[in-house]
Amino acid sequence: MTWQRKDLLGLQELTQEEIGFILETANSLKEISLRPIKKVPTLRGKTVALLFFEPSTRTRTSFELAAKRLSSDTINISRDASSLDKGESILDTAKNIEAMKIDIAVVRHSCAGVPQVLARHLKAAVVNAGDGAHEHPTQGLLDLFTIKERKRKISGLKVSIIGDIAHSRVARSNIWGLTKLGARVLLCGPKTLMPPDVEKLPVEVTYDIKKALEDADVLNILRLQLERQKESLFPSIREYRQLFGINHERLRYAKADVLILHPGPVNRGIEISCDVADSQSSLILEQVTNGLAIRMAVLYLLSKEK
Amino acid sequence: MTWQRKDLLGLQELTQEEIGFILETANSLKEISLRPIKKVPTLRGKTVALLFFEPSTRTRTSFELAAKRLSSDTINISRDASSLDKGESILDTAKNIEAMKIDIAVVRHSCAGVPQVLARHLKAAVVNAGDGAHEHPTQGLLDLFTIKERKRKISGLKVSIIGDIAHSRVARSNIWGLTKLGARVLLCGPKTLMPPDVEKLPVEVTYDIKKALEDADVLNILRLQLERQKESLFPSIREYRQLFGINHERLRYAKADVLILHPGPVNRGIEISCDVADSQSSLILEQVTNGLAIRMAVLYLLSKEK
Amino acid sequence: MTWQRKDLLGLQELTQEEIGFILETANSLKEISLRPIKKVPTLRGKTVALLFFEPSTRTRTSFELAAKRLSSDTINISRDASSLDKGESILDTAKNIEAMKIDIAVVRHSCAGVPQVLARHLKAAVVNAGDGAHEHPTQGLLDLFTIKERKRKISGLKVSIIGDIAHSRVARSNIWGLTKLGARVLLCGPKTLMPPDVEKLPVEVTYDIKKALEDADVLNILRLQLERQKESLFPSIREYRQLFGINHERLRYAKADVLILHPGPVNRGIEISCDVADSQSSLILEQVTNGLAIRMAVLYLLSKEK
Repeated sequence: MTWQRKDLLGLQELTQEEIGFILETANSLKEISLRPIKKVPTLRGKTVALLFFEPSTRTRTSFELAAKRLSSDTINISRDASSLDKGESILDTAKNIEAMKIDIAVVRHSCAGVPQVLARHLKAAVVNAGDGAHEHPTQGLLDLFTIKERKRKISGLKVSIIGDIAHSRVARSNIWGLTKLGARVLLCGPKTLMPPDVEKLPVEVTYDIKKALEDADVLNILRLQLERQKESLFPSIREYRQLFGINHERLRYAKADVLILHPGPVNRGIEISCDVADSQSSLILEQVTNGLAIRMAVLYLLSKEK
Repeated sequence: MTWQRKDLLGLQELTQEEIGFILETANSLKEISLRPIKKVPTLRGKTVALLFFEPSTRTRTSFELAAKRLSSDTINISRDASSLDKGESILDTAKNIEAMKIDIAVVRHSCAGVPQVLARHLKAAVVNAGDGAHEHPTQGLLDLFTIKERKRKISGLKVSIIGDIAHSRVARSNIWGLTKLGARVLLCGPKTLMPPDVEKLPVEVTYDIKKALEDADVLNILRLQLERQKESLFPSIREYRQLFGINHERLRYAKADVLILHPGPVNRGIEISCDVADSQSSLILEQVTNGLAIRMAVLYLLSKEK
Repeated sequence: MTWQRKDLLGLQELTQEEIGFILETANSLKEISLRPIKKVPTLRGKTVALLFFEPSTRTRTSFELAAKRLSSDTINISRDASSLDKGESILDTAKNIEAMKIDIAVVRHSCAGVPQVLARHLKAAVVNAGDGAHEHPTQGLLDLFTIKERKRKISGLKVSIIGDIAHSRVARSNIWGLTKLGARVLLCGPKTLMPPDVEKLPVEVTYDIKKALEDADVLNILRLQLERQKESLFPSIREYRQLFGINHERLRYAKADVLILHPGPVNRGIEISCDVADSQSSLILEQVTNGLAIRMAVLYLLSKEK
């Protein structure tokens, strides 16, 4: 196939074939970062603008290195530095950046839908790097890539996503990506952290961590956003850990070759114990490595003339 | 001609020929940003330091991309990150940066005259990227470039600059540039926002917006700095809009082919209505594109061996 | 010799031969920054991560330019932007960055020992860019380089380090480097700013500024950290200046060809007078130029396959 879309906004809208094509492209680009000279001239003379209206180190860094390893120029526009302080709208900011002839805008924003609005109004390609609780498609793709690399396939696997599902764009991109590729997805977490529209999603739901672990091929453990506790969305960190925290003992309920994923940054000793985070089953750092390959693939595909 | 100056500090000191030479150079560099590969090796191995002691996204971004498209290395020194927190003087900071063998220092500062002081003490070329209410020469040049591209000439045009003239370095650079190239410049705004030395400037002044619009070839609408209201420099935003705001209806007093310029960021619905900002007459985004070409030209001319 | 170490953590652990080798390498790289095209392809396709958990402009800028002039890619991770806000440990942050296949991590942190911990856990080379009051090895190296360039040798010189020794990583790296290369080191400052373990260091101590100046070949004047006054570590700025400030008059006690070093940023008129800071004896800006060469040498040596 050839890539047709101008933008990457979410996994919900992608076909199985499109997702597979990005994963294949990432697979062929991954080895660039393993070379002594980690750089190819593919995007020389292109410009990638990193518009992070919500702070982020790891995702911004990953996109920035992905662009640089493809020899693209990059420009950082973070929230604090931006003209938004002067009352300018995000659309005006983005149109101004585009007028400097950028090729790709990577956008993170705390409101769902901002990348979609920008995509409609800009000629430049737009990559959603996380919008509110909506989607974080490159995170979903890197999770798929990491699972497939180990299990050789996605179809037929049981993947349990554990934690604060309601506020997680990572969960949402995973749900769409995994189910399109044929996995069985089970959500598990406190009732207060389950999204209200959960019955419309192509998933099973449980509030019992043992059921989430049983026969699971993959556990995708979400970060507990501790500031939610102030909103009384879960009773206490101690109780959360007791009910949903993944530790070595609890892991015995899962398959022996279960894979542990976590989008990071990890709250060690809360949603995941130190021994599990650092165990052989844990692919947390492999996810970071694969994230770079996925972002290289996305920037490459979106920069091609259509 | 060949370029002789070490620095670009303001348009007041430039000759008509020098201004024309920068515009021509920008004209030949503009198409680089329209190519699929937007990069030339002209400034490879040079270093441009961006010293922004006053926050700015668009000007800093424009200079940074201009430098990168000419293959220069860039280094960002923003106010917050700088050693100024440790009580060091701006001159010491600049001399330290220069000791790292930079070629060009692009300087923005809230005090008028800072780039001039640095230019006297540094061997590196200094570009004024805005100093207090004094000058913002690359903004003046990009405005000239944008007008000339559409009208084929500057000489004989009537250009009205509307708004807070007193505090505007954009207005000042425009006044010098436009009059040197033979335009007739008219200033319009509230009396409290007119500079005390206005009669010494080569301009006409009116407080009646209709007179500013009549027969105007170009309107350069300044950004209303809303924080000025606290200083009681104008009565209310509503009254300002009624007296000086440019909307579709008011625009009928101007020529049919009048051009609308604004240095951005725009306060939509205050100094300019949304329909005018987004109309065919508006060159606001074209100004941004041309700003990049102007900055490429300036960096190129100042980096040449003299 | 060939370079064997994975990391550069401090001068205390280096041999005389290793220090000499870095200085020689810097000497051969210094002229790159004096060329019209200040760039060599040596580190093309390498990635240097700048992890500054303590704010810094000049050291970060120096490392960033050093990396860029060797054609390395760079990535900035400053304290404010980082995931540390989200409660992640420094080790997790560093491991995450490393998972993106960086080659060298340059680390500054307010706690002594952080670079050592990272060096043990990362495959990437780690450069200590200042850790608490422990060491700042590239500053020590650039001071050695600057002295050697002028005096042709280090051995046999009398070097007096003046000021807040207790809190100075610069002093500590200088003490190790200078004594390993055969200099005689004398410390001078208020008793309250002398480290408790000073008798274990290979130095002489005096509280009399005249003794520090007599027969000195080099004065390394430390920055007075004015916030220490609140901790009552010295009586008043005026008294400090009277007792330990270096001015033109006091300089007559030293050798006629004494060299003045200061790590910057300078408190003009406090630890050093303006006339001394700007005199022929002062090498303050030369130190900055040499710092770039030292950092190029360190990045180059650590990036080589072992």
